[in-house]
This record gives sequence, C-alpha cells and structure tokens, in this order.
Amino acid sequence: MIIPIRLVRESATEYDITIGDLPKLSYDRKVAIVTNPTVSALHLERVLEKIEAPQLEVVEIPDGEEYKNMDTILSILDRLFQARFDRKSLLIALGGGVVGDMTGFASSIYQRGIGFVQIPTTLLSQVDASVGGKTGVNNKYGKNLVGSFYQPEAVYIDPAFLETLPPREYAAGIAEVIKMAVMFDEEFYGFLSSHDLRERENIEKTIAKSVALKASVVNRDEKENGIRAVLNYGHTFGHVVENETGYSRYLHGEAVSIGMVMANTLAVELGLLDPSEAEAIEKLLIDNSLPTRYRIEDIDSFYDHFFLDKKSAGGKIKFILPGGKIGTYRIVDDIDEESVKRALKIYNGS
Amino acid sequence: MIIPIRLVRESATEYDITIGDLPKLSYDRKVAIVTNPTVSALHLERVLEKIEAPQLEVVEIPDGEEYKNMDTILSILDRLFQARFDRKSLLIALGGGVVGDMTGFASSIYQRGIGFVQIPTTLLSQVDASVGGKTGVNNKYGKNLVGSFYQPEAVYIDPAFLETLPPREYAAGIAEVIKMAVMFDEEFYGFLSSHDLRERENIEKTIAKSVALKASVVNRDEKENGIRAVLNYGHTFGHVVENETGYSRYLHGEAVSIGMVMANTLAVELGLLDPSEAEAIEKLLIDNSLPTRYRIEDIDSFYDHFFLDKKSAGGKIKFILPGGKIGTYRIVDDIDEESVKRALKIYNGS
Repeated sequence: MIIPIRLVRESATEYDITIGDLPKLSYDRKVAIVTNPTVSALHLERVLEKIEAPQLEVVEIPDGEEYKNMDTILSILDRLFQARFDRKSLLIALGGGVVGDMTGFASSIYQRGIGFVQIPTTLLSQVDASVGGKTGVNNKYGKNLVGSFYQPEAVYIDPAFLETLPPREYAAGIAEVIKMAVMFDEEFYGFLSSHDLRERENIEKTIAKSVALKASVVNRDEKENGIRAVLNYGHTFGHVVENETGYSRYLHGEAVSIGMVMANTLAVELGLLDPSEAEAIEKLLIDNSLPTRYRIEDIDSFYDHFFLDKKSAGGKIKFILPGGKIGTYRIVDDIDEESVKRALKIYNGS
Repeated sequence: MIIPIRLVRESATEYDITIGDLPKLSYDRKVAIVTNPTVSALHLERVLEKIEAPQLEVVEIPDGEEYKNMDTILSILDRLFQARFDRKSLLIALGGGVVGDMTGFASSIYQRGIGFVQIPTTLLSQVDASVGGKTGVNNKYGKNLVGSFYQPEAVYIDPAFLETLPPREYAAGIAEVIKMAVMFDEEFYGFLSSHDLRERENIEKTIAKSVALKASVVNRDEKENGIRAVLNYGHTFGHVVENETGYSRYLHGEAVSIGMVMANTLAVELGLLDPSEAEAIEKLLIDNSLPTRYRIEDIDSFYDHFFLDKKSAGGKIKFILPGGKIGTYRIVDDIDEESVKRALKIYNGS
C-alpha cells in the first residue's frame, strides 16, 4: 500500500529589504539582539533606542570567524532557553556576516525554528550575506559546512553603520559587489569602474543594485540548484585560500578577490576569457584596495582541498567562470585536473 | 528604499509512504544507514541486502533517549564528513523515533540539508514519528527543544520489523494510535476497541489508518500553527511526566497514555467530557497494556514544568482535550491555573 504525502506550503516566503535609516521597530513578543562586543560598543545604544519589545535581551557572542562554530550556537540557544523564549520569539542579528549566519542558524533550530531579522552592519553583509537565507557555522572540515536554508522576516540595511567600518572590511564588501557585476551586469560594472565607492551617494546606489541583483538570483533559485551557484564565483578558490591560512590572514571578501583572479586565470587558460579583461578586473579589485595575489605553496594539496567544498557534489568540482564578456558567466564541471593545476601554476607565476 | 523579496518555492514537498515488504532500493549516490546496535543486530543484514549504492556506510549511534542530544548529532555529522559525503548524499534512518528524529535533524543541517529516508522499525515510529517532518534532540531544558521541520524523501513501513519488538514498545505505539482515534475518528476508535491489535492483519490496518490520518493533518498544517497541535493530545502532560522521571521510567508512548488520562480528567473537570467516556478511553489503554496512572509528588512544580514546553507560546499553556464526543477535539489556552491544579489533584486521587 502506498500513501502519497503532499505537503503544500501555506504560502511563499516573503520579506522586505529596507535600505535607509533604521526605522522604529515595535514587537509584541520576546526579542533577543545577537551581536558581538565590537559592534555593540559602536552601535548597540542607537539600535536599542529603536526597538520596543515586552522582553528585550542582548546576547553577545565573541567577535571573529574563529568563533563561528557549533559551540557558539549552543551558547546562544542556552541563553534563549534561560530567558524562556518560546516559538513566537524573535532574534535580531546585529553585526556582520558571522553574526548573521549564526543568528540565522540558531533561529532555524531553536524549538524547530523561530523568526529572525537582519540588521547587517558591514558592507559585505549588507550587499551579500543578509540576502538569501544561507545560515551556518564552520568546523574543522571547512567553512559553512553545518547550517540550513532559513529566511529572515525582514532585513534593514542602514548605510550609516558603514561610517565606523575599518577600510579593510569596507574593501572586502566591494569584492562581492564586483563579483555580482562581473557575473550579471556590464552596466553596473561600468558604474563601479568609474566611481569612487567610498562616497556615500555611490555606495548607497551600489548597495541597492547589489541587493536587487542578488535578490533576483535567490528568487529564481533558493536552494542553489542552478543559477545561484554563480554567486560562488571566486569562492571555490577563495575557500581553499581561507582554509589554508586558517581563516585568519584574509577577510572573506579578500579571499574572494584572490579567488576571482585565480578563476580568471583558469578562464584565460581555457580560452574563455580575454587576458585584457582579466587584467581589467584585477585592476578594479586593486583600485578598491583588495589583495589579488596569494602564494600557493603546494598545488597538489591546494587542489585536493576543493573536494571538501559543498559544491563538489559527486566528486566533481563545479567552477564558476566569467563567460567571455562582462555580465555573463559559465558553469563548468568537467575541467580536467591537469588544466586546473596548470592554471594554478600560471597564477603562481611559476 | 524597500526591495521586496519573494521566495517562490520550486514546488510543494511530496513523498510517498509505502506500507508492506521493504522493497529493493537502488541509489546512485553515497548512502549512510543510521541505526543503533539493537536494531542493527536484529535487522541490518536483511536491510543491507535490499540497498544498493556506490558507497554505503553504516553509522551506529548509542541506543536510548538519553543519547538523543547534540553530541550524538555532531558525531553523525563527523562520520559523514570523514566519508566525504556531499550535498547529493542520502541518510537512511533505520530504527525507532529516536533514530528517525536524529537522522532527520542531521540531514537538515549537514551542508545545509541533504536527503533522508525513513525505515521505521518500531510501531510508534511507524504510525507517528515517521510522518510529518519533525526532527530534533533533547537538552537539559526538555524534549525536542532543538531541531527543525524537515521532510524525508520517502518512508518505508514494513510490519515485519514489529515481530521482534518488545511488548512494552508495541503498547507504546498503540498509545499514539488511540490518541489519533480519540481526536479524529470515532469509527477507527470502534475498530480499536473491538479488535486484538497484536494480530498482523489488524495492526496493518491500524498502521495504514493512523498514517493516513496523520498525513491528512500534516498536509493541512505542516508547521503546527493550527490543527497539527491536536496531535499533542496527551503530550503536554506526558512531556512533564517524562521530564520528572528523567526520560528513563516510561517510554514516550507510555507517558502519552498517562498524559491522555490526565487531559481527560481536566476535560471532565471542565465539563467538556462525560466521565463514562473518560473511563472507556482509560480502559482501552489498560486493555492494550498501557500505564495510565502516575503519582504527582508536587503539583505546583508539575504545573511550572508546562512553561518549558514549546507549545506554551506567549506564556499560555495550550491544552488539547477531547471535544465531548469521540472523534472531536477542543483546543483551549485560557484555562486558569486553579482549574488545572484541581484536575491534577483529582487525577492524583487526593
């Protein structure tokens, strides 16, 4: 006997991303702001003035990618249980991508899922991490290997937070913006190449365009079965760089910048990208104070690292490469090992 | 500026529940069977003969509710990383509700979610836990407080597994069946009251009816915002009993049996249920070798325990009670503390 089960979702998931001054937020349920000491010192006071709730907790987690792990998740959950949070309670992520990814993950598993709201405070999280519902933590096998797909109820992007952002972190955010432009939008790439992105007016336009591009990709492919994989341009290589350097030498966006230049080298090697285009992209990265060069010590070992990546389904590495013209892309999963290693040698300058 | 995000799910989640002999299962991806030593000794050999996969792992976790915790989840994930499972890999839960809940939870967070299949081997998990997508683990604050909603790809219910099931566990499964009948189906309740449920033919009919009832409830309310809460009849009280006795004295179904009788006492006290109906339900439970009596040592402390339950959203306890006639129910969240404590005293016989 076969009993077919068909689960019909009550409705599609919908939420708004608001760009501009953080509005007044009033909730009729318990709320916890999850943040870290750095962000807390700079912004918590202002944010607390904007939020009303019958019970408002502040959960501080340690600052840094090295604390993006299951222990920190369990400590967040523990605080919520102690404060008797229930299934209607809400978490607010106040911070960068690490705070957002962990708050989202904690929300997704606390009592089988409670609501959460993102208030991203870094450029990287404003343009990238706060949109799309990827949550997770790292472990000894790699980055973001444990987590879930879980969407926020709302995202509030206030560019005023960027005024206190260190220049390196600002640049790291620009890396993801350049990634979006190279993959999807030649006109936007032109805008980025011809404007000073440290100016408020330009960065607001840049954030809005990036968020809209990412939202349209996520809308088409929430679970990364198709086009969403394109957002991983620079990431397949970048993750290995981060892993090899213990997640401490480079910011994520810096590693992505390096990863894009590696991917471009492979694309040039395969005849998919004109060398002058590769140079122009690298120049745009450098102009925005991003690193593009990394010394690979052992190319075989670097290559082996790919296989711990989530995207290497079925033992194949899926490379996301520029498509020959800015604003286009190519997804390839049949590049032979030799070609990849040759490209890595060329990148290494050896 | 507000950018609205609308995530449109690619399709509704669909899967089949197959009741009957375990079929031959062929997969073209890595598969891990998650089970425990008890089930493994009895059934693994037969199951392995039915499953084909390019890489087949067996992950044994310790047997018992006391190991239903995050440490066990992390050990499952670790085995999967070591075996280089990717996002296309599959977990198969072979065992009772504990194995199913943990395998489902591990599947939902491994690399942000991989597929899983349920092969429930206990009556309780066949009629109840394998349908509906609730996953999770216990912690020091209570049962199933960390987890997710995550649906299996398929469920295979083979009554042959029940031949080796200890009588207490068999009875514990019947408790959930009686729960379904009391809440939703008078005719089914009549069937249960007039048949020997230890006979193969009767238990097959019982499983099929229970699964169909539960599936129809879950279909209408995956995330337990409405009617699905009715499945918690007996559970609000039962969870406190389990918690007070350290999850060791009673099987879950036994605690639910006790919990239903407590709920019935409250329903009688509130004038919602005729005392003769309450007696008939208790007799049906006793006839199926289920415990119905528990000595509450401290009624105030018992009452306070309710507030750690996930279902006590907003500080209100949601009680699921019979609706006055078999096959109907009542959801009430405005019962005053005194009435509940009075009912508990009456139940206690004091």
